[in-house]
Amino acid sequence: MAAVFVKPSFSRTNNSFNLNNPYYSLFSKSSFHLSLHSRPLNTIKCSISRRPEYIPNRIADPSYVRIFDTTLRDGEQSPGATLTSKEKLDIARQLAKLGVDIIEAGFPASSKDDFEAVNMIAKVVGNNIDGDGHVPVICGLARCNRADIDAAWEAVKYAKQPRIHTFIATSDIHLKHKLRKSREEVIQIAREMVSYARSLGCEDVEFSPEDAGRSEKEFLYQILGEVINAGATTVNIPDTVGYLLPVEFGQLIADIKSNTPGIENAIISTHCQNDLGQASSNTAAGAYAGARQLEVTINGIGERAGNASLEEVVMTIKCRGNEILGGLYTGINTRQIFMASKMVAEYTGLPVQPHKAIVGANAFAHESGIHQDGMLKHKSTYEIISPEDIGLYRSNESGIVLGKHSGRHALRSRLIELGYSLDDKALDDVFWRFKAVAEKKKHLSDNDIVALISDEVFQPKIIWSIGDVQVTCGTLGLSTATVKLNDADGAEHVACSVGTGPVDAAYKAIDIIVKIPVVLLEYSMNSVTEGIDAMASTRVLIRPENGHTSTHALTGETVHRTYSGTGAEMDIVVSSIRAYVSALNKMLGFEERAASKE
Amino acid sequence: MAAVFVKPSFSRTNNSFNLNNPYYSLFSKSSFHLSLHSRPLNTIKCSISRRPEYIPNRIADPSYVRIFDTTLRDGEQSPGATLTSKEKLDIARQLAKLGVDIIEAGFPASSKDDFEAVNMIAKVVGNNIDGDGHVPVICGLARCNRADIDAAWEAVKYAKQPRIHTFIATSDIHLKHKLRKSREEVIQIAREMVSYARSLGCEDVEFSPEDAGRSEKEFLYQILGEVINAGATTVNIPDTVGYLLPVEFGQLIADIKSNTPGIENAIISTHCQNDLGQASSNTAAGAYAGARQLEVTINGIGERAGNASLEEVVMTIKCRGNEILGGLYTGINTRQIFMASKMVAEYTGLPVQPHKAIVGANAFAHESGIHQDGMLKHKSTYEIISPEDIGLYRSNESGIVLGKHSGRHALRSRLIELGYSLDDKALDDVFWRFKAVAEKKKHLSDNDIVALISDEVFQPKIIWSIGDVQVTCGTLGLSTATVKLNDADGAEHVACSVGTGPVDAAYKAIDIIVKIPVVLLEYSMNSVTEGIDAMASTRVLIRPENGHTSTHALTGETVHRTYSGTGAEMDIVVSSIRAYVSALNKMLGFEERAASKE
Repeated sequence: MAAVFVKPSFSRTNNSFNLNNPYYSLFSKSSFHLSLHSRPLNTIKCSISRRPEYIPNRIADPSYVRIFDTTLRDGEQSPGATLTSKEKLDIARQLAKLGVDIIEAGFPASSKDDFEAVNMIAKVVGNNIDGDGHVPVICGLARCNRADIDAAWEAVKYAKQPRIHTFIATSDIHLKHKLRKSREEVIQIAREMVSYARSLGCEDVEFSPEDAGRSEKEFLYQILGEVINAGATTVNIPDTVGYLLPVEFGQLIADIKSNTPGIENAIISTHCQNDLGQASSNTAAGAYAGARQLEVTINGIGERAGNASLEEVVMTIKCRGNEILGGLYTGINTRQIFMASKMVAEYTGLPVQPHKAIVGANAFAHESGIHQDGMLKHKSTYEIISPEDIGLYRSNESGIVLGKHSGRHALRSRLIELGYSLDDKALDDVFWRFKAVAEKKKHLSDNDIVALISDEVFQPKIIWSIGDVQVTCGTLGLSTATVKLNDADGAEHVACSVGTGPVDAAYKAIDIIVKIPVVLLEYSMNSVTEGIDAMASTRVLIRPENGHTSTHALTGETVHRTYSGTGAEMDIVVSSIRAYVSALNKMLGFEERAASKE
Repeated sequence: MAAVFVKPSFSRTNNSFNLNNPYYSLFSKSSFHLSLHSRPLNTIKCSISRRPEYIPNRIADPSYVRIFDTTLRDGEQSPGATLTSKEKLDIARQLAKLGVDIIEAGFPASSKDDFEAVNMIAKVVGNNIDGDGHVPVICGLARCNRADIDAAWEAVKYAKQPRIHTFIATSDIHLKHKLRKSREEVIQIAREMVSYARSLGCEDVEFSPEDAGRSEKEFLYQILGEVINAGATTVNIPDTVGYLLPVEFGQLIADIKSNTPGIENAIISTHCQNDLGQASSNTAAGAYAGARQLEVTINGIGERAGNASLEEVVMTIKCRGNEILGGLYTGINTRQIFMASKMVAEYTGLPVQPHKAIVGANAFAHESGIHQDGMLKHKSTYEIISPEDIGLYRSNESGIVLGKHSGRHALRSRLIELGYSLDDKALDDVFWRFKAVAEKKKHLSDNDIVALISDEVFQPKIIWSIGDVQVTCGTLGLSTATVKLNDADGAEHVACSVGTGPVDAAYKAIDIIVKIPVVLLEYSMNSVTEGIDAMASTRVLIRPENGHTSTHALTGETVHRTYSGTGAEMDIVVSSIRAYVSALNKMLGFEERAASKE
C-alpha cells in the first residue's frame, strides 16, 4: 500500500503522521477554533477559477480532478428512472451550472429518443459557454461496434467538445458468459474501435474495460496500452459490480499508472458502483492514487446500489482535498448541488433517504429539530459543512414568510434565492397557483413553494388538463369518482367510475376518457411541510401496455419505457390525479414524437 | 500508511499485489467461474459457529470482529425516530436473532422511558440464550458523571452480560465550546468515572473519547491509557463529525494500537458517522487496522447523515474478509438482515432509498425489471451477493401466489418464509385482514402481505379503534369527512369536519373525538405493489402540543418526543386514518404509562 497514499507533500514518519504536517498542526493550534467557527473549512477551499484549459488527454495542473457526471446515462438506467428529452435537457443545463467537466448525456444507440436527447444536449448545452469560459464536454456511450460508435458520434459531434465513450468487458467471467470471446479477440476489437472513433474526427475518446475490478491486472495493462496507442485519451476503470475496497481500488489505479505502456498520454478515470457501500471512498482513493477523472451521479443513483455520488465525492475533495488528498480540487460550484439533487430526485422519482450524506433531509444538524440557538452556538462542534455550501438556504423561522398578501415581486425574489429563475410566463403560472394555495394556507414555507414550483415547472407538455373532480369514499367500500378533463383543443370530457378507493376510482375515470391502457408501477405521496393542512406531493410511475423500448447498455437487453408524473395539492386525491395526468401527458408526448419519427 | 494495510498473510511486492496471493489467483484460475456462478462468494464465507466465548477485554480468536449495534441509542436520536418501549424490545429481539455481539439499548439517564426500555431489554433479551449458546451483551450509555452511570448500571445490571458505555469529548473544539474544561480535568473525570463504573460491580466498561477524529493523537493515547488502567475493557474511537477518510481512520486506529499504554488489555472499537459518505469504508479500514468491535446501526440511521450501516459493514467483511481483510469474520447471521432492515424502517419511519446498498429496493439486479431469464443466466456477471444471503426471498412470478381462496395454513407458511413467526392470536388477526383484502384484490403478493402484517403486528396497544368513515372531496374545495371511532370501552363516537382535503377533514374529525391537540410533523404514503388497485401504506409522525421530553446524549439539549403510526389499506383516505389513529394510540399509551410513573 505504501506507494498509493504517500505523496511528497506529506511529511510522514514510520507508522504515524508527522504532527508537524499542516493537517495536524491545524488541530493543535489554538487559532483553529476561530477559523473553523466562522465558516468551517471554507478558509481552505480552492477557488473554482483555477480550472485549467480542456485538453482531452492532458491536464496542465496535476492537482485538478475532472468530474464526469453520468446521471443521464448510468443513472437513467435505474429501474423506473426513465427521463424525457426535456427533463434530460433540464438536468444537463443544471450540470453545466454545477460546473461538471464532462456530461455523459446518454447511450445514443439504445433508442431514437436517447439519440435525440444526446443530440439536443450536444447542440444546446455543449455550445453554451458560461461567464467563466467553461463549456462541458458532451459524451455519448457506445459499445465496441461501428453502429454504436457511429450513432454516438452523430449525436455528440455538434458540441464544442464532443467525446465518444466506448467499452468492452475484460473480466474472465464476462468474457466467458457475456461476450464468449478470447482475450486476444477483445484486445483487437477494442483497438480497432478506438481507432475507428478517432477516424471519424473525434479527438476525445474514452475507453472502459468493463468489470475492470475483477479483471486480471496484466491483461488490463495490455489492453489499456493498446487502446492508448490507438488514440484513447481517457481510460476509465470501472468496478462494475462494486466489489473492491478502497485499499484495493487505490492500488489498482496506482498499478495501472505504473505499469500501463503510454499511460502518460491519457487521463485515468474511476467508475465505482456502490454494492458494498464503498463507492465514494473508492473514488476518493482512486483520485489519490492518480485518477484525474471521477465518474459519478447526482444522489448516487444508478443500477442496483448505484454509483459514487457526485455530492459525496466533491464535498470530500473540497473538505479534505488540501489536507489529506495532496491538494486535489475540482471545478464544481458546490452551491448548485442542492438544486441538482432536488431536480434529479423529482425527475427520476428516486428519492434520497433522510440520512443520505450531504443532500438528505437530516444531513445538516440545524435542520434536525435541535433547538436553533443551541445549534448556532455550537455550530462547528457537530457540523463540518454548512448548508449554504451546497446551496441550501432556508428562510429563518423569525424571518419573512410568504402568505396570501405577498406579491409577485416577493415570490420572484424568494424563487431566485431558492435557485429558480423563471421567465414571466412561468412566473405567472406559478403565481396563480401560489395565490390559490395561500388562500387556504396561512403561511407558505420554502418547502411549499418548492413543491408548487416543481408541480408547475417540472411538467411535460400539456395534452390533457384537469377540469373538475368530485369524489366520495370511505369504509363502505363504494368509492366513486367523477372527473372532468379538457383535451388539447379545450373540449370537455366527463366520466365517472367506482374503484377500490378514491384514487383507483379517479384513475379509472381518467382511463375511460384517455382510452390508453397503462400499468401503474409505483405510487407515492409525501406531505411537503408540517401541519395538518400540509400540501401533499404525489408521484406516480406508469408504463403503457404496448410501449416503446430501449436497449440496456451493459446487458444488451430490452427495457420498457416508463413515465413518471408529479402533482402537488392540498387535497391528496386531487394531488394524485394531477400526478397521473402529468404522467399520461409525458407518455403521450413521448409516443407522439416517437411516432412522428417512424 | 504502510503499517496499516500490510499484514503477514498477504505477500505483496513493491507497489503491486503479488499475483500469487489467494485473492488474485482466485480470479485467474478457470475454476473461479464455477464457484462464483453456483453461489457467489458463499464458498468463502465463514461459519458463524466459530464465535469465540465472550470475555469483555479479550477475544480468543484474533480474526473475530464484534458487532456493536447502536440502532436503539444513536439511531433512535435521529430526528423523528422515537421508538416506544415495545418497539425497542422487538428490535432488540431481532438484533439478537441477527447475532449482534452487543446491543446498545439506550441512554438510561435521558428519560424514564429510556431507562425502562433498557431495563426491559436487559431482563428479557439479555437473558435469552439462543440455541448456539449466544446471548448479546446489553449496554447502556452514560455521560461521565455518577448519576448517568448509576442509571445505566441500574438499567443493564439484570442482563447476563451487562455493559456501561461512558464518554467524554476530547477534541479541543469540544473542550472549549461544550465542556469548558482543560485536558487534565477531562482525563481526571474519565479515569474516575471508569473506576466508579467498575466499583458498582460492572466488569464490562466501554469508554469513548467523543470527537476522537478531531482530537490530538498524543492526548488520545494518554487518556485511553488512563481509562484502561482504571478498568475500561473496550475503548471506542468515534469520528463524531464524519470528517475522516479511510486512510486516516485506519491510521488512527493503528496509531492507537501502537502507542496507547496497556492497549493489549482492551478491545479497540470504531464508531464512524457518515457526513462525507465514508462511514462504511472507515469502519472496514478500522477493522483491518486492528479494531475488533465495530459500532453500526441498521440501515445506517443516526443523526445527520447517520452511522456506518450494519448491513454494509457486515456484508463487506463477509464478501471480502477472507481475501482482503486478513481473514476477519463476524458472528452475524446475515439472513436476518432484511427483516431487521424492514423492522427498523417501519418503526423509525426512516425509509431507505431505492439504491441503498444491500437493503435498497433496487439493490439486487433481478428485482430491477431486467428480464428474469436473462438475469438468471448471467447472474454472477452483475451480482456479487445473492438476495437469499440477506434473507430476501420472493415468491417466483410463476410460483404460487396467495389469493382469496388461500387458507390459514398457506398464509402461515408464507409468513414463516418471509421471516414472521406469529402466534395463533396474531395469525387470526392477520388472516381476517388478509381475507378482506383478498376479496377486493385478485392476487396478493409478498409485498401486500408484508404491508398487512406490518399494519397488524407493528401496532401499539389499541386505545381508539376505527368504526366507519365516509368522505367527500374534490376540486370544489368542500372536503368533508365523517368518522366513527370506538373507545377502549367499546363506546361509539361520531364526528364530522370539513378540511382543505379529505385527510385534513378526517384528521380534524378525529381530533374532535380524541380531544388532544397534536402537531402533524410528517405524512407519507407509498403504494405497496404495482397496479391501479394497489394497497397504500401510509405513515404519519405526530407530536403532542404539550408532550414528554428526553435529553440528547451528546448535546445535552431537550428533545421532544414524537410518535409514528402506519396504516395499510386499498383506500388512501382510510389508510391515512389508520396511520393517524395508530400514532395517537402510540402517543396515548406512552403518556398513560409515563403518567402512572410520576
